[in-house]
Amino acid sequence: MKINMSHGSGGKQTEDLINRIFLKHFDNNILNRLEDAAVLDIKGKIAYTTDSFVVTPLFFSGGDIGKLAVCGTVNDICMMGAIPKYLTAGFIIEEGAEIETIDKIAFSMKLSAEEAGIKIVAGDTKVIEGQGGIYINTSGIGEIVKSGVSISNCQKGDAIILSGNLGDHHAAIMSERMEIENNIKSDCAPLVSIVKNLFDSNIEVHCMRDVTRGGLATVLNEISSASNCGVEIYEAVLPISNEVRGLCNILGLDPLYMANEGKMIAVVPGKQAKTALEVVRKSRYGENAQIIGHIVDGSGVTMITTLQGSRILDVLYGEGLPRIC
Amino acid sequence: MKINMSHGSGGKQTEDLINRIFLKHFDNNILNRLEDAAVLDIKGKIAYTTDSFVVTPLFFSGGDIGKLAVCGTVNDICMMGAIPKYLTAGFIIEEGAEIETIDKIAFSMKLSAEEAGIKIVAGDTKVIEGQGGIYINTSGIGEIVKSGVSISNCQKGDAIILSGNLGDHHAAIMSERMEIENNIKSDCAPLVSIVKNLFDSNIEVHCMRDVTRGGLATVLNEISSASNCGVEIYEAVLPISNEVRGLCNILGLDPLYMANEGKMIAVVPGKQAKTALEVVRKSRYGENAQIIGHIVDGSGVTMITTLQGSRILDVLYGEGLPRIC
Repeated sequence: MKINMSHGSGGKQTEDLINRIFLKHFDNNILNRLEDAAVLDIKGKIAYTTDSFVVTPLFFSGGDIGKLAVCGTVNDICMMGAIPKYLTAGFIIEEGAEIETIDKIAFSMKLSAEEAGIKIVAGDTKVIEGQGGIYINTSGIGEIVKSGVSISNCQKGDAIILSGNLGDHHAAIMSERMEIENNIKSDCAPLVSIVKNLFDSNIEVHCMRDVTRGGLATVLNEISSASNCGVEIYEAVLPISNEVRGLCNILGLDPLYMANEGKMIAVVPGKQAKTALEVVRKSRYGENAQIIGHIVDGSGVTMITTLQGSRILDVLYGEGLPRIC
Repeated sequence: MKINMSHGSGGKQTEDLINRIFLKHFDNNILNRLEDAAVLDIKGKIAYTTDSFVVTPLFFSGGDIGKLAVCGTVNDICMMGAIPKYLTAGFIIEEGAEIETIDKIAFSMKLSAEEAGIKIVAGDTKVIEGQGGIYINTSGIGEIVKSGVSISNCQKGDAIILSGNLGDHHAAIMSERMEIENNIKSDCAPLVSIVKNLFDSNIEVHCMRDVTRGGLATVLNEISSASNCGVEIYEAVLPISNEVRGLCNILGLDPLYMANEGKMIAVVPGKQAKTALEVVRKSRYGENAQIIGHIVDGSGVTMITTLQGSRILDVLYGEGLPRIC
């Protein structure tokens, strides 16, 4: 069965869609009340964020738009030193989308939400003309357990830990679009475990940031600018899988500007760097972590190349890969 | 200047768009930090909701998609007995949209947010292929000042107050699309003042609901179902402007199923009905309020017609007006 405009009317058909798919998968005692808003008990400081997802294709190796929509917002919450608690989901669906497709996506959201420990407590559905496309907005709330984690808090001598291989999500989406057969999977994943373990180990985390659109180079420039510092990284230690490296060589892609959906950097005091690295490596999705560089004097981002040259890294200019997330 | 795919890359062009438009209009010390998530101080119980907006045309008599995106979420928060505090805004923009158009919409959001007393603290921008369309998701947080306001809380003998004229938003959008010239304006408005005044006057509000997609008949059915009660309303007292009534007669529309964007019902104890009505009428956007009916025994929604007949009102079936909000 396909979605038509009446599924967005707010009447009987909208109710059916909500009951048959969203309440079935997202089932919890807050959402099930179907009030105009969810009522939540919150203590103290919270992290609050939003993200829209327009990835194409909707399903790809290693994930789908639903998994992405949960993990993307979960990770933004985590980066502020918070534990994810509540999520909203707004669906904009093009006429002609298969209800079975929406069901699969909702089920995938349920699984990711369960893994991340977040409840989907409010939602909305709209229908527009089109050819079966699906867009999802999520917003999320987390309870801050560690204050002061901030992009403007990096200090000279801090070490930069990258949680794993670069470029997997970008390479997976590109492979799907170009119908290249390989084993590359999107890294799309919730980073709750890495963040929780860093806090539990009393690592004094100065800054965390997930490495998404714009890639590592863009994120490091944001840090340089917000913390008013220089950043130096080492090409030789950047974790990149052989298969992604191969694809980059063939297509002329630069892993430093490629999007990831399950990678983060943590900026920690230099003297805690080794302990922090061990903590990240023992965490789920952190097994390939590396200390990739340091906060230094000056400004901008410099990479020491494998040939011991140095290369200035700017932010991403131009398109990147459209509709990567 | 027009939006192109690079404005959604997460790199330099995305940053420019954020700086030139969103930070300019939404300017506040939480948003301006540009972290992965906003950090907020919250006390006690909150109301949390989300809504997406796909209205076409983007600008219409009495409002635009930006005003709608703020008011819609503000009103959902208010209906739970909460004062709106924080808003997120997620933009999905089709390639080819004029940057000037986005600027106008953002300015309109700023004005509505100011009126509603809500801060826009986080945002996101994505670009998709298309022909200049714009979709906006907002999510919002309010602090609950009155607990227990709920769609399942209506009791026999309660009076139902409707805050003003039915059908204005629907009639305005339809007039725009059909190029009918008239003076009908969308009622799009934040209902904070009505809700605050009801609380300040110690009215024991049992339930509030804004009357949007699906219209009054659909909302009353939701109440009947959730509170396990009957609802009786009186056609003779339903506030409808002459101009909207005229349009309905010509086009065969039923104001009971037409969408509004600045109307609510408040269900209050019968003995407080008159006082509550006065409070609403003295509030901004409440001057045409009426007591339109009561909660009764039984189930379902019945309207006593002007000819003293009775008509059963079901929920909206079928399309309604597509992309009304």
